[in-house]
Amino acid sequence: MTIPEDHPRYRSLVTREHLAACARSGIVALEGLTAHGRGEAFDYLLGERTTASAAEAERVAAALLRRAQHPVISVNGNTAALAAPLLAPLQRATGAFVEVNLFHRTEERANTIAALLTQHGVAVLTGTPERLLPLSHDRALCLRDGIYSADVVLVPLEDGDRCEALRAMGKQVIAIDLNPLSRTARAATLTIVDELTRALPLITRAAETLSDEECDYLTRSIDNRYFLKSALEEMKQGLTHGLD
Amino acid sequence: MTIPEDHPRYRSLVTREHLAACARSGIVALEGLTAHGRGEAFDYLLGERTTASAAEAERVAAALLRRAQHPVISVNGNTAALAAPLLAPLQRATGAFVEVNLFHRTEERANTIAALLTQHGVAVLTGTPERLLPLSHDRALCLRDGIYSADVVLVPLEDGDRCEALRAMGKQVIAIDLNPLSRTARAATLTIVDELTRALPLITRAAETLSDEECDYLTRSIDNRYFLKSALEEMKQGLTHGLD
Repeated sequence: MTIPEDHPRYRSLVTREHLAACARSGIVALEGLTAHGRGEAFDYLLGERTTASAAEAERVAAALLRRAQHPVISVNGNTAALAAPLLAPLQRATGAFVEVNLFHRTEERANTIAALLTQHGVAVLTGTPERLLPLSHDRALCLRDGIYSADVVLVPLEDGDRCEALRAMGKQVIAIDLNPLSRTARAATLTIVDELTRALPLITRAAETLSDEECDYLTRSIDNRYFLKSALEEMKQGLTHGLD
Repeated sequence: MTIPEDHPRYRSLVTREHLAACARSGIVALEGLTAHGRGEAFDYLLGERTTASAAEAERVAAALLRRAQHPVISVNGNTAALAAPLLAPLQRATGAFVEVNLFHRTEERANTIAALLTQHGVAVLTGTPERLLPLSHDRALCLRDGIYSADVVLVPLEDGDRCEALRAMGKQVIAIDLNPLSRTARAATLTIVDELTRALPLITRAAETLSDEECDYLTRSIDNRYFLKSALEEMKQGLTHGLD
């Protein structure tokens, strides 16, 4: 159906319709629609804006990617659906590999997503996924030259189990997760509590402009708990003043 | 795919899979999956339990339905998917009419949902929907002998616009909504901030057991803002202690 333009949540409804269309075309898993809804709720509490601490986390993320030997951006269906046009600039600015890595994995969906990213100018890593992560079932799959070999992995909208597995393998994980209490957010080296399409351009811009010295400085000591606590404080303010 | 049983969020993932299956079978709109995710996030902050104030709201809801002349339960796709077996007992305990009323309306989906409810022993109101609500597009549709004639309407998981329209028509609206800041929650006569499958049996039980005097007492002066503020306080506690 057509969303009435007089609806007060028009923009949010249009994004949901876009994701629903991407579910019909096989980019997004049906379960990914629910995950998006959870993010929406937390973003609502943030006031649907990039907070000062999230902006700082985005600069630190850019610095981590810039300093990495083998940075990888892990892309799932929701990320491709919401942010495909934003990934090529980020890849250019950071030199990162881009790997399609799915929780609800089918080869067909992985190929559809890779094709969409390629259309948007992303150089997508190819190869045969192997069971290289310490996880049960197909969630163990990744590419040997991609996530398996990475020292820094950017995982927007990730499964908590996989985030923990990557950390256990000694990798630095940058999560983009609107839920500061999720296992992903807590296990990551650095969590950006911000909406994906706001976060990615800010990481790209920082990666383009930070000096090497700034990158060294920003990554000397990363306090993820500070970023999570700041986000929780912002959300408490959202709950406190929401009825005013 | 099969959800690994060792996944810490197994139950939540199984519910999401069930909703996804209901989306494939035409009960749930794809957009309903996203709405479910939003509810999940707020429920997470509540600790996924019925709070004391929500339990009180459920007793007040039962009293409102018991005292109504023409109570109607409005059922959408998500409600049918999550709670079809819980509706017949509630209908018996309150004498309410049940009307299928959809935001993303197609006749086919309305019929599929009505059939599912009937299978579960619900007496579903039939008839031809007319544009009787002060809203644009198909959202104005409802049954003349159903929602249009109701004095009390229970609307689980409702669209904010419609909740406001029902209030403007002078009806008492009971909302079940996990987001205490939503327009639905704020516009309703009474908002139950609780998860649907926890809330409905508690309303049913109260409707079966409250005396007429208790029903009169509980509905004398309903302070919806109190229930919303209580829920917000609980969620703030969830944000405060979530990282402990």
